[in-house]
Amino acid sequence: MQRDDMILSAFFFNPQGDHRVSWRYPTAPGHEIYGLPYFQKLAEVAEAARFDAVFIADHVAMWDTFPSNVAHYANARLEPITLLSALAAVTRDIGLIGTVSASYSEPYNTARAFASLDHLSMGRAAWNVVTSGMNEEAMNFGRDGNIEHGYRYERAAEFLEIAKDLWDSWEDGAVLLDKATGFFAEPSKVHRIEHEGKHFKVRGPLNVPRPPQGYPVIVQAGSSGDGKNLAAKHADLHFAVVRTLEDGVSYRREMNALLASHGREPDSLKILPGILPIVAGSREEAQEKREFLETLVPERFGVDLVSSWCGTDVSHLPIDGPLPELPDESTYDGQRSNLARLKSFKQQNLSIREVARRLSNAGAVPMVAGRPQDIADEMEAWFKGGACDGFNLMFPVLPEDWLNFAEQVVPELQRRGIAQPSYRHGTLRDKLGLARPANRFAAS
Amino acid sequence: MQRDDMILSAFFFNPQGDHRVSWRYPTAPGHEIYGLPYFQKLAEVAEAARFDAVFIADHVAMWDTFPSNVAHYANARLEPITLLSALAAVTRDIGLIGTVSASYSEPYNTARAFASLDHLSMGRAAWNVVTSGMNEEAMNFGRDGNIEHGYRYERAAEFLEIAKDLWDSWEDGAVLLDKATGFFAEPSKVHRIEHEGKHFKVRGPLNVPRPPQGYPVIVQAGSSGDGKNLAAKHADLHFAVVRTLEDGVSYRREMNALLASHGREPDSLKILPGILPIVAGSREEAQEKREFLETLVPERFGVDLVSSWCGTDVSHLPIDGPLPELPDESTYDGQRSNLARLKSFKQQNLSIREVARRLSNAGAVPMVAGRPQDIADEMEAWFKGGACDGFNLMFPVLPEDWLNFAEQVVPELQRRGIAQPSYRHGTLRDKLGLARPANRFAAS
Ligand SMILES: Cc1cc2nc3c(=O)[nH]c(=O)nc-3n(C[C@H](O)[C@H](O)[C@H](O)COP(=O)(O)O)c2cc1C
Ligand SMILES: Cc1cc2nc3c(=O)[nH]c(=O)nc-3n(C[C@H](O)[C@H](O)[C@H](O)COP(=O)(O)O)c2cc1C
Repeated sequence: MQRDDMILSAFFFNPQGDHRVSWRYPTAPGHEIYGLPYFQKLAEVAEAARFDAVFIADHVAMWDTFPSNVAHYANARLEPITLLSALAAVTRDIGLIGTVSASYSEPYNTARAFASLDHLSMGRAAWNVVTSGMNEEAMNFGRDGNIEHGYRYERAAEFLEIAKDLWDSWEDGAVLLDKATGFFAEPSKVHRIEHEGKHFKVRGPLNVPRPPQGYPVIVQAGSSGDGKNLAAKHADLHFAVVRTLEDGVSYRREMNALLASHGREPDSLKILPGILPIVAGSREEAQEKREFLETLVPERFGVDLVSSWCGTDVSHLPIDGPLPELPDESTYDGQRSNLARLKSFKQQNLSIREVARRLSNAGAVPMVAGRPQDIADEMEAWFKGGACDGFNLMFPVLPEDWLNFAEQVVPELQRRGIAQPSYRHGTLRDKLGLARPANRFAAS
Repeated sequence: MQRDDMILSAFFFNPQGDHRVSWRYPTAPGHEIYGLPYFQKLAEVAEAARFDAVFIADHVAMWDTFPSNVAHYANARLEPITLLSALAAVTRDIGLIGTVSASYSEPYNTARAFASLDHLSMGRAAWNVVTSGMNEEAMNFGRDGNIEHGYRYERAAEFLEIAKDLWDSWEDGAVLLDKATGFFAEPSKVHRIEHEGKHFKVRGPLNVPRPPQGYPVIVQAGSSGDGKNLAAKHADLHFAVVRTLEDGVSYRREMNALLASHGREPDSLKILPGILPIVAGSREEAQEKREFLETLVPERFGVDLVSSWCGTDVSHLPIDGPLPELPDESTYDGQRSNLARLKSFKQQNLSIREVARRLSNAGAVPMVAGRPQDIADEMEAWFKGGACDGFNLMFPVLPEDWLNFAEQVVPELQRRGIAQPSYRHGTLRDKLGLARPANRFAAS
């Protein structure tokens, strides 16, 4: 199960790229972001570059606390499961990672959708399990506001237990299809799960046979203590946010200890930090592009972005003055890593205007800008330095930055023997060097 | 909006066809029923025959009250939304009808999935709204048993109102993508729906722009009073179960009155009765095939099938004796049309064995068996006699009966000018002669 080259995943959230107003970039696509051909092209580039996966991230709401969010941000997007199912039909090797929220869906439906996607894609499905931290999301599902952080993670852990039970509810080989005897299935290999827990009651069995991968690949991207614990217990891939090689090494060490506490081996969890590569003739050229992107951010939008992150309206404060007092972690039910980031900005005495610019630039992951060989150098150093098993690549502007990376950096990584030159055989798990999980119900 | 030829939909529930043990038929497919190519072939046949739609029916549970259900019935199946999304990528004109239960899903998620499918398919999505009448389904979603019939339909009506509000929450033209001004959307055209009802509380807006069709085509197949009312209020297509031309004419009359009570025109609801065509050299040959299929039904399976329908275990009763006392409609929370059917069998004094045989033969819809011209005659008579706007075609054995129909009966219908020889342009609504719905939020 050894995988000795990098695992590479291409992250797509905002359809035109991760910069908050990427859609305004001159070469950014228009209405075609609501059609299949645009995403099919992105996925074809991924297969040509022998990427392991495309990752369709998601929220189950518009981000619309402030009117400027609606006016200036590309809030509306296709839904991941439908999009990935369509992509399954027009791709062959690429892994299909999709976000579904464990806070706002039913375990039976979610387990079933991923089982079905895994069959349709012949073993390429992966589920990014999130717990959804936005008030806007909660309000689309019967609530007045966000659910408390720990409660969300507790529910997610139970949700995953149920999903795994359901995927196991048809043992391998349970489908007999024996026309002579009339046995479609072997009843002793089909199990009711009879789950009764704090959050859910689900009888099962699932009405889809066990997925080709046993379970779809489980992805987890939460970096709070609760998030890391969920990853260490259940995940196969972990998207981490680390800013330096050294951070990555100590993050890996921390995760290995958590894995051990769950009786798992280090190589059963692949850690992929996010990086934001900008291919340019030089570092200066990359910096110019970044600055140009900042000019595209409407002022009011930037201010409201800061308000969103702070959880309090800052629009009445002087834009060139400091951030307001920030909430305590224990009372902050949004994404905790966001809060930590704001606190560091506050320590650096950045103004609201400056913070707005930083936040518009695609979240917390480090940008690596420069010539293809500069970017490859940095990635190689992290990878060989033990900071990660590969990378989750994020792009400020789509498709431009993605095409540049795929066409210029990937060949360089391949030349160095650290990115795969061709696909391995088998399912996504096989390709990633992950074991096919044993069945919980099978007599061993 | 006139549509003067038949609307034709091909119904796929059991992957090997509607006979309960179709999977045992010699030419029936095996494990390929869990892969895309099998369904892609079925859909390609539909497009070649210029069918309007393929219809992927569904339950959200295994039917497993009795062990024989698990042993002898092809219970496991792919999930409709994933399957139809994959089919969207490999087809061009065919409508994509999928079942999703309003009892066991969230309005936001369901509205979003269909909106996304409608975008991905360029306006070909259709939703068969069901309320799910099986105990097994209820038990996968936190309940001990089935929800009361009227309550389910009340919830479904509220669910549909929310879905329509959500699809309207982005008005047509709300997406500006104006790079010069920085306006991605026109905020006055994006609406929170602020729904608070008896069953749901949903704020909105949806995070997908309005679907190409405005709303996906709404399909309803319940034939109880509640079911017909829901159809008359909300549906575009209604799958009816009628046994004769005369039944169809009076059903149409009844539905027209219901439509009028909701202020709707008769041609805004297309009624498609189910029929089960068996193409054979002669009626005798068709009868032989039917009898051969009966020999495939394991005895215990047949008895348990009767128990399921009756809602009481009949396995201790003499198999050649009569049915037990049947429950009263008011206390029967399963599918009411099933109960009516059982009552008529009881009146005819059929034995349990005989009833089991009838029930194995694909439900309540009439079989039309014979040469292609015989089947075309019958369909033409119903259609020209005002009994329907087209048909929902069901097949005992897949792909055999479907291929026979598509290749032999469709050309005959086309020759007679009552089936379309080529596709009309536009969305599924356009093709079906259905108006694109006005937006509830738009200033008119
Ligand atoms: C690479 C990456 C991808 C993520 N994708 C999603 C996503 O698609 N949907 C979502 O709601 N949250 C997403 N998140 C947020 C995480 O699930 C998590 O909520 C966040 O990192 C904060 O961690 P915490 O919730 O454990 O405090 C993502 C985070 C990262 C680092
Ligand atoms: C053609 C047709 C297709 C149907 N498809 C489904 C389906 O996919 N899933 C489901 O749960 N019920 C399905 N039903 C059942 C109906 O939704 C409904 O429950 C049934 O006709 C009984 O009507 P009632 O519930 O109004 O009493 C279908 C019925 C018909 C006639």
